[in-house]
Amino acid sequence: MTTPTSHALDQAISLQMTAPNRFGGHCDETYLNMVGPFGGMTAATLLNAALLHPERLGDPVSLTVNFAGPVGLGDFEIEATPLRTNRSTQHWLLLLRQNGEVMTSATAFFASRRETWSEQAAECPPAPAVDELPRMERNERAWFRHYDMRYISGMFKPGEAEETHDSLLWVRDEPPRPLDFAALTAIGDIFAPRIFSRRQRFTPAGTVCMTHYFHASLDDLQRTGSDFLLGQAGASRYHHNYADQIAHLWAADGTLLLTSTQVAYFKE
Amino acid sequence: MTTPTSHALDQAISLQMTAPNRFGGHCDETYLNMVGPFGGMTAATLLNAALLHPERLGDPVSLTVNFAGPVGLGDFEIEATPLRTNRSTQHWLLLLRQNGEVMTSATAFFASRRETWSEQAAECPPAPAVDELPRMERNERAWFRHYDMRYISGMFKPGEAEETHDSLLWVRDEPPRPLDFAALTAIGDIFAPRIFSRRQRFTPAGTVCMTHYFHASLDDLQRTGSDFLLGQAGASRYHHNYADQIAHLWAADGTLLLTSTQVAYFKE
Repeated sequence: MTTPTSHALDQAISLQMTAPNRFGGHCDETYLNMVGPFGGMTAATLLNAALLHPERLGDPVSLTVNFAGPVGLGDFEIEATPLRTNRSTQHWLLLLRQNGEVMTSATAFFASRRETWSEQAAECPPAPAVDELPRMERNERAWFRHYDMRYISGMFKPGEAEETHDSLLWVRDEPPRPLDFAALTAIGDIFAPRIFSRRQRFTPAGTVCMTHYFHASLDDLQRTGSDFLLGQAGASRYHHNYADQIAHLWAADGTLLLTSTQVAYFKE
Repeated sequence: MTTPTSHALDQAISLQMTAPNRFGGHCDETYLNMVGPFGGMTAATLLNAALLHPERLGDPVSLTVNFAGPVGLGDFEIEATPLRTNRSTQHWLLLLRQNGEVMTSATAFFASRRETWSEQAAECPPAPAVDELPRMERNERAWFRHYDMRYISGMFKPGEAEETHDSLLWVRDEPPRPLDFAALTAIGDIFAPRIFSRRQRFTPAGTVCMTHYFHASLDDLQRTGSDFLLGQAGASRYHHNYADQIAHLWAADGTLLLTSTQVAYFKE
């Protein structure tokens, strides 16, 4: 559920229901990336179709987004179909089309979650305080300016001596905005392709398929508010044009909010 | 591509094309799990629909499977739709239905892969030789007997003293069968829910959504042949009925073949 504000994020993911299972949206230049909008924002928009759907049950547990073609500036349509609704779970198919062509496909799983035994295995890595770190000042992509990113390590900077699979940073929406499932979805795609920081040189590259696992329950999100999140991303293997990424996002108090995985293309 | 043999796996994933984008299959008791068939075999069957499709382009790079309802014994239908085909990539939607109801949904991404710069970041963990370890002898589930599993650590055994998030084992099809994308897909789901080894007591639990990232190119598969694979799985957080799992499968020579992630339900 997104709070109706005038934040750029809320405008970007805004949808109008036009018919049963159909939503209309619009892509402008606000979150533009290299080719089309920042993938995290497309993912958040697709999730929002399920969040806004009158038949929606529970909260997001997982979301998979396949970036099939570049979303162009202008209008798009999302078809959001609840494929199956059980007593406390719901499976979604989400298709974003422009001019009748599927540009992005997604599946999502929602559930009514209950109190259970809980334990966190992935400990939050140590990091300097946010205010000891400079904000990344970069303007290559429009979407950068809507996040406050403070890299601790593994920033992509062509020519940089540190070549690494892993990146660690503090990040939040700019201006600050209370965290919800849509904002968390977008931030889950905040990391540059791993090949960038590993080789510290530019190559055509981009996310193809991304899956988020939402650990955060509503009270986790509310407790986080508009604070910074700590994000860490690594890779397992780069091979024949594709590399995976495994990432985690923690609240400042150390609570793990999201596990995110993806596969990204790289040219050579 | 699956080799036509009389191996139980090939029978389980066998499909007949019945109409454009439509395949018929059959679920019997061979790979039966607690409720319905072993999820890995359902995933392999869905992937097989894309592999067998006349419009298929390239090899699997990623596969996401959503277990929406229990597949029952008997016939099923898979609708395999190439949602978008680009020059060297292809996005699939795969829906498995029984009696008109969606039981499993999936998306897959295929690509023609080329030689590129390659590097493996996830090192294969040290493990004793296969023949120094006993084969797991368990009969609770029909599908167990079709795998030779040799646990090094983290086996689920109610009452066991070792409570751990992580499991490490050698595994291969039984009887041995040359590795292909379908067999690798099934093995990617070989691990018991993390909550089992963490608490060493039974609770209703099961995979809901699973995503595989295939690092293996065809030559990796061929080199592996019918050898054992080393599999490692861990968790990041168990919270409010759901826990994630991140797993890796390596060939015996240390080559990473698969990164697999999933979210599993647990009752309390």
